[in-house]
Amino acid sequence: MSDAAHTEMWEKLNLDISAHEGLLEVLGKFYGDIYLSQENRLNGMEYLDFVLSEVHGLRIKEIQDAKATGKKVIGTFCVFVPEELTLAANAIHVGLCSGADAGTDEAEKLVPRNTCALIKSFIGFKLARICPFTESCDLVVGETTCDGKKKAYEAFGKLVPMHVMEVPQTKTTDAKQLFKAEVLRYKEALEELTGVKITVENLRKSISVVNEKRKALQRLSRLRAADPAPISGRDALLINQVSFYDEPERFTQSINTLCDQIEERIAQGGGVVPAGTKRLLLSGCPMAVPNWKLPYVMESSNAVIVGEESCIGSRNVRDLVDDSADTIEGMLDALVDRYMKIDCACFTPNDERMVNVQNMVKDLNADGVVHYALSFCQPYAHEAIKLQDVLSQKGIPMLSVETGYSMEDVEQLKTRVEAFVEMLD
Amino acid sequence: MSDAAHTEMWEKLNLDISAHEGLLEVLGKFYGDIYLSQENRLNGMEYLDFVLSEVHGLRIKEIQDAKATGKKVIGTFCVFVPEELTLAANAIHVGLCSGADAGTDEAEKLVPRNTCALIKSFIGFKLARICPFTESCDLVVGETTCDGKKKAYEAFGKLVPMHVMEVPQTKTTDAKQLFKAEVLRYKEALEELTGVKITVENLRKSISVVNEKRKALQRLSRLRAADPAPISGRDALLINQVSFYDEPERFTQSINTLCDQIEERIAQGGGVVPAGTKRLLLSGCPMAVPNWKLPYVMESSNAVIVGEESCIGSRNVRDLVDDSADTIEGMLDALVDRYMKIDCACFTPNDERMVNVQNMVKDLNADGVVHYALSFCQPYAHEAIKLQDVLSQKGIPMLSVETGYSMEDVEQLKTRVEAFVEMLD
Repeated sequence: MSDAAHTEMWEKLNLDISAHEGLLEVLGKFYGDIYLSQENRLNGMEYLDFVLSEVHGLRIKEIQDAKATGKKVIGTFCVFVPEELTLAANAIHVGLCSGADAGTDEAEKLVPRNTCALIKSFIGFKLARICPFTESCDLVVGETTCDGKKKAYEAFGKLVPMHVMEVPQTKTTDAKQLFKAEVLRYKEALEELTGVKITVENLRKSISVVNEKRKALQRLSRLRAADPAPISGRDALLINQVSFYDEPERFTQSINTLCDQIEERIAQGGGVVPAGTKRLLLSGCPMAVPNWKLPYVMESSNAVIVGEESCIGSRNVRDLVDDSADTIEGMLDALVDRYMKIDCACFTPNDERMVNVQNMVKDLNADGVVHYALSFCQPYAHEAIKLQDVLSQKGIPMLSVETGYSMEDVEQLKTRVEAFVEMLD
Repeated sequence: MSDAAHTEMWEKLNLDISAHEGLLEVLGKFYGDIYLSQENRLNGMEYLDFVLSEVHGLRIKEIQDAKATGKKVIGTFCVFVPEELTLAANAIHVGLCSGADAGTDEAEKLVPRNTCALIKSFIGFKLARICPFTESCDLVVGETTCDGKKKAYEAFGKLVPMHVMEVPQTKTTDAKQLFKAEVLRYKEALEELTGVKITVENLRKSISVVNEKRKALQRLSRLRAADPAPISGRDALLINQVSFYDEPERFTQSINTLCDQIEERIAQGGGVVPAGTKRLLLSGCPMAVPNWKLPYVMESSNAVIVGEESCIGSRNVRDLVDDSADTIEGMLDALVDRYMKIDCACFTPNDERMVNVQNMVKDLNADGVVHYALSFCQPYAHEAIKLQDVLSQKGIPMLSVETGYSMEDVEQLKTRVEAFVEMLD
């Protein structure tokens, strides 16, 4: 696809061409510095490099071509929106979370300054007209997982066609019942938008597609238990990030191919870092593209990241949907059961997350945990305090980091992370 | 009650006597400066002065005496906890929100620094052992109305016996169903704690008691439409604050007596300020005792406050419970209907609040609105932006204030409020 064809497509999507050009330039440079500079990368990562280089290009072209045939595009911000339903309705499911500051001044006219960078970012990207995914959406689906997003959708809903799902705050039977009603409401909204009825057949197929995607990511996660670490945390994060953008079956196949290579590497005793390199679990808020700051800092501090305990990570991958049901009702119940297992900080008390983090530390042979809370993210900031308490009782070291998307604190973060890694000796 | 008897009681409650002494001293001085210095106060306010002077004394004595007879005490932080059920179970219902910085350093070990002052305050008061209400509680009831409180209760629940109610985030039929289940769960918790079965008879009585309290406060609110304003906003706020502490029937009677005096004053054309004084509606977050900073600033700026659009104000008073049901089921439905009308910023989209504010401006003949958001309160900070937009379209001036409990910004607030009031001319 030529540059001119790209530009023409972006113009049709009403992007601000010059601002978008600026974004791609920064993104490209950032990717070069943080990703392409890595040594010992596996061949399979070329797929990821390609996807990322064409994330606003060929992938958008594919989406536009699909739209031309009548397919609809659904944008989401959260792992609580069941991708299985979207795919069953023959629609495309994409993540819209953004990991860079853009349009922040304008965004702060719509949401308070004390709002986390992720929220300001998706609003800023819309206002600055630099996100071709957002511009491709026929419906944007929000949820009530935190005060910041819940209230931001009221403003965002004036800019895009919006559907908000209520995610409950406890896991009582009645709360699950409310979530089931919301899953049904989403199903109906999809059927109305796409004109496609969700049936036992198409839902069975999509449950399988998404389960296979999650299984590939689980396989990748398990392989990272090896010492030396066979893949960098940056690359693994990128894979999880791309899982929100790319066509799911192609993605699954590519990740399984990559996992084959990782298995070979492990069999040969190879790795991306020397054996014995300090191993860190990254835990907390999701990191959207191109929010690679903290992983880069961590992996430039004589350490390797062996797991992402995050929505763009294990929280989206841990549980599969039971595929044994053969009625719509039974399949929806299976979806509700699976989604209500998610250990998001939006729940109270969410003690299962405390257990899950410890299990990941054990399973992945991590030496310590770096907890990442986006500044002004209240749910994860609270759980950082709770987790520190729980881990310290178990003798697991944890560093608590609060940061946003600005690069101003990189040196300060580096000093703190280096000191933490040294302390692990 | 002698000073020694007070002190003995506080010692039994395990208060930190010297820290508590310090609190009372500050509170007394503050009350003198902000309340007792006012001119043209009605005789009926003596009841309030007395209640406040004895809020940690005689009222606690009453509560302790009641406990000695087997009564239980329920502490709450939110107007979503149905007082009707508490009273039906023959228990005492008190508010535990605090309006002063105390124990903040200790509180910040349990909750993030970026937490609103109200939350840090109730935790700080507990940790510093200076709140005899908290120490008197047999059960503390939290709710999930904001991320800050929802997650803070996880830490607070380790310090006190805690029950958390889920308040939904939308007002769909299914969300109301969840709230109904939570109301039932609270009823059962009360019955277990008190050993009192909630019946048609005792619930009918308590619905009437609470309705009468709300009617007295509605009557007060209506009288404030008069020009000149018959009562200061500070005094009206105090009345609303005391409604969370005092015995409800005594409170209702006292407020009705005060309203009689206000009616006389209005009939004589009298007021607490000259006719034509600029009239402000105070809107937003609740103000707990002794958080009188902003009302004092406003009423020291050639203006009078004519309404509090707040949980400690109209949000707790606007709606009555339909008392026509004659089964427990029907009465619980009536409670759910009433509580789910509350226009809290925890709901999305909560457009009814935008309408209610405009109605209050009209009904109370306000010249402008001062919106108050506690720093780090995300729900009200979002709605401040939304409300400003709605009001500006209607030509209603609004000043948006964000502040905490510190006195550091008093002069800055005064400058802003004075400029706003001048602009109303």
